[in-house]
Amino acid sequence: MITGKNYIGDVISASGGKTYKTFNPELNEENNTVFTEATQEEINNAVSLASQAFKEYRSISGKQKATFLNTIADEILALDNELIETYCSETGLPEGRAKGERGRTVFQLRSFAELVAEGSWVEATIDTAIPTREPLPKSDIRKLSIPLGPVVVFGASNFPLAYSTAGGDTAAALASGCPVIVKSHPMHAGTGELVASAIIKAAEKTNMPKGVFSNLNSSGIEVGQQLVSHPKVKAVGFTGSIRGGRALLDLAAKREEPIPVFAEMGSVNPVIILPKALQNRSESLANTYANSITLGAGQFCTNPGLILGIKSEELTNFTNELASNIVEISPSSMLHPNIVAAYESNKEKALAQSGLIVVGNYEDEVQSNYATQIVTTVEGKTFLENTTLHQEVFGPFSMVVQCESAAQLEKIISQLEGQLTGTVISDENELPEYKPTIDALQNRVGRIIFNGVPTGVEVCPSMVHGGPYPASTDSRFTAVGIDSIKRWVRPFSYQDWPNELLPDELKNENPLQISRSVNGNFTKSNIE
Amino acid sequence: MITGKNYIGDVISASGGKTYKTFNPELNEENNTVFTEATQEEINNAVSLASQAFKEYRSISGKQKATFLNTIADEILALDNELIETYCSETGLPEGRAKGERGRTVFQLRSFAELVAEGSWVEATIDTAIPTREPLPKSDIRKLSIPLGPVVVFGASNFPLAYSTAGGDTAAALASGCPVIVKSHPMHAGTGELVASAIIKAAEKTNMPKGVFSNLNSSGIEVGQQLVSHPKVKAVGFTGSIRGGRALLDLAAKREEPIPVFAEMGSVNPVIILPKALQNRSESLANTYANSITLGAGQFCTNPGLILGIKSEELTNFTNELASNIVEISPSSMLHPNIVAAYESNKEKALAQSGLIVVGNYEDEVQSNYATQIVTTVEGKTFLENTTLHQEVFGPFSMVVQCESAAQLEKIISQLEGQLTGTVISDENELPEYKPTIDALQNRVGRIIFNGVPTGVEVCPSMVHGGPYPASTDSRFTAVGIDSIKRWVRPFSYQDWPNELLPDELKNENPLQISRSVNGNFTKSNIE
Repeated sequence: MITGKNYIGDVISASGGKTYKTFNPELNEENNTVFTEATQEEINNAVSLASQAFKEYRSISGKQKATFLNTIADEILALDNELIETYCSETGLPEGRAKGERGRTVFQLRSFAELVAEGSWVEATIDTAIPTREPLPKSDIRKLSIPLGPVVVFGASNFPLAYSTAGGDTAAALASGCPVIVKSHPMHAGTGELVASAIIKAAEKTNMPKGVFSNLNSSGIEVGQQLVSHPKVKAVGFTGSIRGGRALLDLAAKREEPIPVFAEMGSVNPVIILPKALQNRSESLANTYANSITLGAGQFCTNPGLILGIKSEELTNFTNELASNIVEISPSSMLHPNIVAAYESNKEKALAQSGLIVVGNYEDEVQSNYATQIVTTVEGKTFLENTTLHQEVFGPFSMVVQCESAAQLEKIISQLEGQLTGTVISDENELPEYKPTIDALQNRVGRIIFNGVPTGVEVCPSMVHGGPYPASTDSRFTAVGIDSIKRWVRPFSYQDWPNELLPDELKNENPLQISRSVNGNFTKSNIE
Repeated sequence: MITGKNYIGDVISASGGKTYKTFNPELNEENNTVFTEATQEEINNAVSLASQAFKEYRSISGKQKATFLNTIADEILALDNELIETYCSETGLPEGRAKGERGRTVFQLRSFAELVAEGSWVEATIDTAIPTREPLPKSDIRKLSIPLGPVVVFGASNFPLAYSTAGGDTAAALASGCPVIVKSHPMHAGTGELVASAIIKAAEKTNMPKGVFSNLNSSGIEVGQQLVSHPKVKAVGFTGSIRGGRALLDLAAKREEPIPVFAEMGSVNPVIILPKALQNRSESLANTYANSITLGAGQFCTNPGLILGIKSEELTNFTNELASNIVEISPSSMLHPNIVAAYESNKEKALAQSGLIVVGNYEDEVQSNYATQIVTTVEGKTFLENTTLHQEVFGPFSMVVQCESAAQLEKIISQLEGQLTGTVISDENELPEYKPTIDALQNRVGRIIFNGVPTGVEVCPSMVHGGPYPASTDSRFTAVGIDSIKRWVRPFSYQDWPNELLPDELKNENPLQISRSVNGNFTKSNIE
């Protein structure tokens, strides 16, 4: 049952006076539950509890953390229809998407469980002593990754399950040994509370320390600001707009002790279609891209908002084909009236720029909160000169840039802001001719895709979801995949420490049987 | 020959009007060479060249980079006596230290050369495609580390070779594929120029792109500020004061595109001496620590500035013994009159705090620019209440804190600012009794040492030199050891990329024969 209250550790609490409701965009009406925003005192309590819990949780074994994470996954599945129905009522997204995202969330939790149960992720590195070394003896030094401390996770509007309460950031932080305080996303506060209840149940069942997890309601920016400013918070995970992410980054940078903010923000995800591919298959490409642009009403951070080609009859054909394909797709609702409003106003701003031409626009009347898709086109020169056109329009919006030449294409790519992804569509081995463009693209993105679409982010060890600013605030880390655990840890060395007092990961006997680097060689062997 | 000019890539240039000289603290007089500070135009040229060089240098093979790094080491050794004499004349440090530091610098360069020649450091991670997967086929995704772009390195006053022009930061950045622009430290500009000439010679001999390295003279803060603010600079390495490091961090955070600043800053390096160790060997400990405190006139970032014990007769004996040992050690000169002046003023500030008692103070007259060592003591309660006493006094200064109880010791440790190191001196298996204190210490430092001294930082894979703020600005990375290369790279994914166009590290054939994670298993095998 959804109470509308906060979880301060395992205690349900609602001492504040500020309330709000979530909204059903399909029905165009508010949902019933009243949510109470967390007060300053509740925030302080949650952080103090997390800080206290950290003392114990930081050294809990990988196997125990794995049990906790797997139990969270079980408890989320046990929420069954209540979760799916709440999700749909708070997002307007269809049941299939809800179930798919739940599957992804559970998969992520189980992946991190597997990672920490196995244990090699701590990158244990051992250099044994050389007492006879001249001129000075060499000490025994052993390193592993240890958790940073309490982490604040901001729920993402567009992933109420996979990147919110028990999403990738939370799963990675809990796996690393960091307690988590979630600033719940106001648009899906009910979904968030249900998932929070699953985490709290799992924490109780597996005897985790009180305060290892809290869930705070919030309808504005204050709760988040107070959390990020709190001296006992040691890191922040965020998925959302550039404005929001940058504000948190700036706040964290101004603290007496600055802390890392890992924000995954906006991206237009450029797609380059090279001439031979255009010649060979502009129709099927137009079809593929019409679907990718409108997938989930364009509400994916990897949505392809920018398509680039070299001016030609084929590019014009592709653009017209894309336009005629896209207007045939039925619009769907966006997550919230505020998101529809932002889409409309960003679209309007883009369309007001001189030189941007509408090629296809869904013009039939639609239900309230539905997004109408649009395809536009612009000359390369105009695009180069007007950076307003480089900005993301979050929603089913796409722009085809007609470059005068390969050189202009390269120049445009090299001047783009940082992006999550870049895609290259190419046939008949024409890629090597465009090496400078591809090199420039690599320097601007976190992932490049060959002959595919950027939407669809695989959860696997080789995935990079992040990229140069403003795609993310720290391109040195990924937000998706098991390596995202590295955001929440730091390396730590023991020098000449007694073997029996070392953590198991570093003991001579290698009791966990993990892979370690010992004197420069990877091995699972013990140390004689 | 030292010209006093800047290296803008391989071009010697001195178009500015602002000049300065270095200082010989032993002779208490200026050295002869006139150095010309870099102008805004020279700064811009150096950064543009670096940015241009990056396009080529980022994809140069590991073997070529290794040759470059090894040639730098050779050229530094070829500078022979001119380098050693210049070093000594600009620092007042003895010849033995100069040669030792040169050895360390060369060792670091060769270690990074070995790392990148072997190649596995890029952490190649491959998940092969599963075209038959349901409901959606799985793409082939392959990840490796790629360099960030031009890096600015600030020379460190206290390590004119090992953490300056061709020091750890530069070696790591060049190894990663990032061009480097050094902001030369004004106190050892001649040493810096000689080393820069060695790097430029090596770059020419090994055909590296022009602009892969520049060396800019600077006597104030402006050159550094301009470099950190330059849009084409992508990361910063700094070793120095908290004030200096924080200023650069703040500047980088305010950029349109914020960039990582890796600053290794101040530390008091707490040493806890437990009761049984005090009972058993207070005399030998006092002797060891008197030497550690005065090593290099206390000018090491790992200098033990804070010793903590539980109030007892033995602690008093230790303190007195430390005091009588320390006044018998001959003082030595500090690096520069400015550093002596800072030492004197910080010492004065500390001594003005109520409750701080001087136990031993070298009072004989000394040469100009010599630092006189001092041992002080204070009650735990007084220390807890006055954070001024927690601040580093850079130089041969030490403070013994007499804690009332184990609980007070734990409280003091848990309230300390972040530190590079923590040391525990303990006998007869008394460590487990102090577990909460040791846990609190671990949470405040980057490295803990058992029954040793914090000075002496081994260059090896397991070393962590860094720690929670303000020991460093990003505790997730180390400044010493081969893993410091991770500061200058980001992960990058290729999705469904044609095998023949992948970098060698990710090709099916594994032509470099590196260790890779393939579908979750570490292997050097090729992919069928």
